[in-house]
Amino acid sequence: MNAPRDWLDAVRWNDDGLVPAIAQDAATHRVLTLAWMNRLALERTNETREAHYWSRSRSALWRKGERSGHVQHVREIRLDCDRDAILLVVEPLGGIACHTGRERCFYRRLDGGEWHTVEPVLEDPVTVYGHE
Amino acid sequence: MNAPRDWLDAVRWNDDGLVPAIAQDAATHRVLTLAWMNRLALERTNETREAHYWSRSRSALWRKGERSGHVQHVREIRLDCDRDAILLVVEPLGGIACHTGRERCFYRRLDGGEWHTVEPVLEDPVTVYGHE
Repeated sequence: MNAPRDWLDAVRWNDDGLVPAIAQDAATHRVLTLAWMNRLALERTNETREAHYWSRSRSALWRKGERSGHVQHVREIRLDCDRDAILLVVEPLGGIACHTGRERCFYRRLDGGEWHTVEPVLEDPVTVYGHE
Repeated sequence: MNAPRDWLDAVRWNDDGLVPAIAQDAATHRVLTLAWMNRLALERTNETREAHYWSRSRSALWRKGERSGHVQHVREIRLDCDRDAILLVVEPLGGIACHTGRERCFYRRLDGGEWHTVEPVLEDPVTVYGHE
């Protein structure tokens, strides 16, 4: 018998109380984002089945899509062998996961000793967020 | 014109000089591992096209597969929008990426408030590493 929050205690949070969380598109299998979660973000993600993260720059809990509408519906929550990384398998609304208006954040590829942007902007961030 | 190592300077290393690096299987598209890289690990990965990481527990550079033989041949190296996370698209030798002898590290899934192991051990770690 597990107490209700044993599964949260099983995660090895870092010194800042965070773990890295990968989001992968359930349909395309593309890796969309790497963000960070604290305990509350992971708990909310499980309860609501919508991805929640911890914004390190704003020091705030953040429901993915709360401003952009690009919510990530969560199909699976996984934990790795060392219990210090999370994988979310998600259905991303609107087909955009990156704040730059791209499908995903990993749009730069290393070729010939330079990072090249290899994925297009699908929606102007000004439209997505109402300002730059 | 870029100096030869500008691409390494473009990465936003954390206070420990590290970035998280996701490895994704090029064929199955499964997310295999989340490990950490320092500057040297990323440089070696690019030069050799074999994944190198920084072991935080051993404080040592680590060529993936150096003991197990489960080398990760690197097809793509990607950087995210914030320049603080790496995605490797890899061809994993032997079909095992996890030190537990599983295909990948994300073998626990959260169901009903408990983490369940949902992927089998494919090879005994004793066989892989010669000891437990």
